[in-house]
Amino acid sequence: MAKEGTETTEETEHMIEKNGAKETETVLSAGDAKEMRAVILSGFGGLNKLRVTKKAMPEPQEGEVKIRVKACGLNFLDLMVRQGNIDSPPKTPLVPGFECSGIVEAMGENTKGFEIGDRVVAFVNYNAWAEVVCTPLDYVYNMPDDMTFPEAAAFSMNFVAAYMMLFEVANLREGMSVLVHSAGGGVGQAVAQLCSTIPSVTVFGTASSFKHEAIKDSVTHLFDRNIDYVQEVKKISPEGVDIVLDCLSGENTGKGLGLLRPLGTYILYGSSNMVTGETKSFFSLAKSWWQVEKVNPIKLYEENKVIAGFSLLNLLFKQGRCGQVKTVVEKLFSLYNQKKIKPVVDSLWALEEVKEAMQRIHDRGNIGKLILDVEKSPTPLVTFVFVMFLFSSGEKDHS
Amino acid sequence: MAKEGTETTEETEHMIEKNGAKETETVLSAGDAKEMRAVILSGFGGLNKLRVTKKAMPEPQEGEVKIRVKACGLNFLDLMVRQGNIDSPPKTPLVPGFECSGIVEAMGENTKGFEIGDRVVAFVNYNAWAEVVCTPLDYVYNMPDDMTFPEAAAFSMNFVAAYMMLFEVANLREGMSVLVHSAGGGVGQAVAQLCSTIPSVTVFGTASSFKHEAIKDSVTHLFDRNIDYVQEVKKISPEGVDIVLDCLSGENTGKGLGLLRPLGTYILYGSSNMVTGETKSFFSLAKSWWQVEKVNPIKLYEENKVIAGFSLLNLLFKQGRCGQVKTVVEKLFSLYNQKKIKPVVDSLWALEEVKEAMQRIHDRGNIGKLILDVEKSPTPLVTFVFVMFLFSSGEKDHS
Repeated sequence: MAKEGTETTEETEHMIEKNGAKETETVLSAGDAKEMRAVILSGFGGLNKLRVTKKAMPEPQEGEVKIRVKACGLNFLDLMVRQGNIDSPPKTPLVPGFECSGIVEAMGENTKGFEIGDRVVAFVNYNAWAEVVCTPLDYVYNMPDDMTFPEAAAFSMNFVAAYMMLFEVANLREGMSVLVHSAGGGVGQAVAQLCSTIPSVTVFGTASSFKHEAIKDSVTHLFDRNIDYVQEVKKISPEGVDIVLDCLSGENTGKGLGLLRPLGTYILYGSSNMVTGETKSFFSLAKSWWQVEKVNPIKLYEENKVIAGFSLLNLLFKQGRCGQVKTVVEKLFSLYNQKKIKPVVDSLWALEEVKEAMQRIHDRGNIGKLILDVEKSPTPLVTFVFVMFLFSSGEKDHS
Repeated sequence: MAKEGTETTEETEHMIEKNGAKETETVLSAGDAKEMRAVILSGFGGLNKLRVTKKAMPEPQEGEVKIRVKACGLNFLDLMVRQGNIDSPPKTPLVPGFECSGIVEAMGENTKGFEIGDRVVAFVNYNAWAEVVCTPLDYVYNMPDDMTFPEAAAFSMNFVAAYMMLFEVANLREGMSVLVHSAGGGVGQAVAQLCSTIPSVTVFGTASSFKHEAIKDSVTHLFDRNIDYVQEVKKISPEGVDIVLDCLSGENTGKGLGLLRPLGTYILYGSSNMVTGETKSFFSLAKSWWQVEKVNPIKLYEENKVIAGFSLLNLLFKQGRCGQVKTVVEKLFSLYNQKKIKPVVDSLWALEEVKEAMQRIHDRGNIGKLILDVEKSPTPLVTFVFVMFLFSSGEKDHS
């Protein structure tokens, strides 16, 4: 069982600012067994909209599994959610987080498939960043015995997305070449490892220079993220590459398409440029999002090119493709058991350290995945100073 | 050796109208062993721009194979070429035709890989509709022993395109569904046969009603080409299909994309709407061509969709992917030898009957492939009357 975080502010009732109005959120009284700690996003905006509080313990409905969470994954997407910079954003307050690992604590009525105590990894449509989460059976998978909880939380979104993009959207085969941006990030490292399972695949990666020493063995050619990677790739491979995985936005779509070899595939899988400084307004972000260059199918025809979009969350939660994802998870666990892939964990953070963790991913400081370790206590003094700093600079940014 | 066509007008020199100016084309004198019959397109336009004449016998350069042609394939693309309705059209006069089968007659200097007398099928960058053709080694493949020359000429473009679209651009697997337009045409029949090599693939096809009886066993669900196929497909499969193969144009791109299931692939592989009546001007065609609806990558991202273009000729002759195509040809010959696929030949036509053949493909009268049989003599009377009719109506159309 997760220990209680003594550092949490135990509120029985507290006020949340939302759309300029005050709203009352009821939580159970401290010490009640029917409550749990969770990260709350009180409204869209900066880091100051996040904090840890207690919430009512969720109970599983029919078809759901109740999981005692051990570790949660933190993704770029969570920063976009925090800023409200996603399509059809949900209402706040909300508990962020789309993936976690933990132990099955209960099952809904008439629900079979897992035993109490099973070690599992799960996708959740929000609410993952908490001590306990309930999610439908279809999104829960038994973990390999050798996999740690942080590894499992680092594994789910990044490896499933990387696998589906490389092998289901594109058709990665022997001798092909792949360009991946943010090669040091969670998806980047998953892509690099999956490429290494196929003979003679060349991986071109971009990453901040300070990461190069750490990740140079995982990719074939590594470029600084600020240089003109188009020229660098063309110097090495004048014909271009077979697959471009692009988590950037707008102006880079054309660059990525231009780098494709005939029959090559460009995949837009997210948009990390959408999360820029704390100073950028939502509207300036939304504007760049919708100004992404459109593509003429005739040009694709003449050049024999493929353009694809990939959103794992939409696939899971809007488009009901759990069965297909489950098959992919099983293939990936098999590769893990054969020791062909291994999730890279950048660092572990307490729930109370979520702001520092988000700042690190925002600043692209990470190599591999950031994990919220639910049982971890924050380092008190450093955290305090850091949080104070963030709060004060966050206030300024949003003035 | 091909017999000489006694019905050919034997000119020693003749005038060709081109861009309003007169140009002299030199051909060798009648009876010279160094000449051959060929279909000539004297300028872009209607059927009256085509005729059979004698031309100088081509001789193979280093790296080329000289082929005594037995059969040539006729494609919708040839109609677009005739109208000049392609990107960067070549200069006229020209000999049309991109594929043929025949017997190796000679090899260029220092050129190895085939023996004199080998039965081969070949891609040619124009010039296929002739008694003899020379083409680089990389575009020539030995035919299976059991394959006839018409089958081979019916095989090359259609099956290679269908295979690459289904298995290399898309990723056809067990249980998937495919929508193909013009299911009765050469590519349509190749798609249907290749889908039948994978378990549990559902094929939706559109075709003119009069073809339904003939092709109903080759596809799972068949719709009339004039009805709203979107509604018909959705009645049977509300979620849509995994692969849409579209040889249509403009307004249908959005319809095709809308029919895709998540992770589905839309492939634009040509544009048969571009070849409409003889009355339409080049500019009205070009206009519809460039007005094809553009695609927003963000929409692809949100909907998990893939859009691709496929042009086999560009792949072969502009993008140098002969090696990849050769591998595909070998796989297809293996399927042929296992009797899993068999090209459907609609009809055989003499070179002198090329106009009637083109009219038939234009009117969508064919089921399977139209073949020019180089050794066939035209049916004299019918041909004469028909050609006279076409000439007179062709003149009217272009007034």
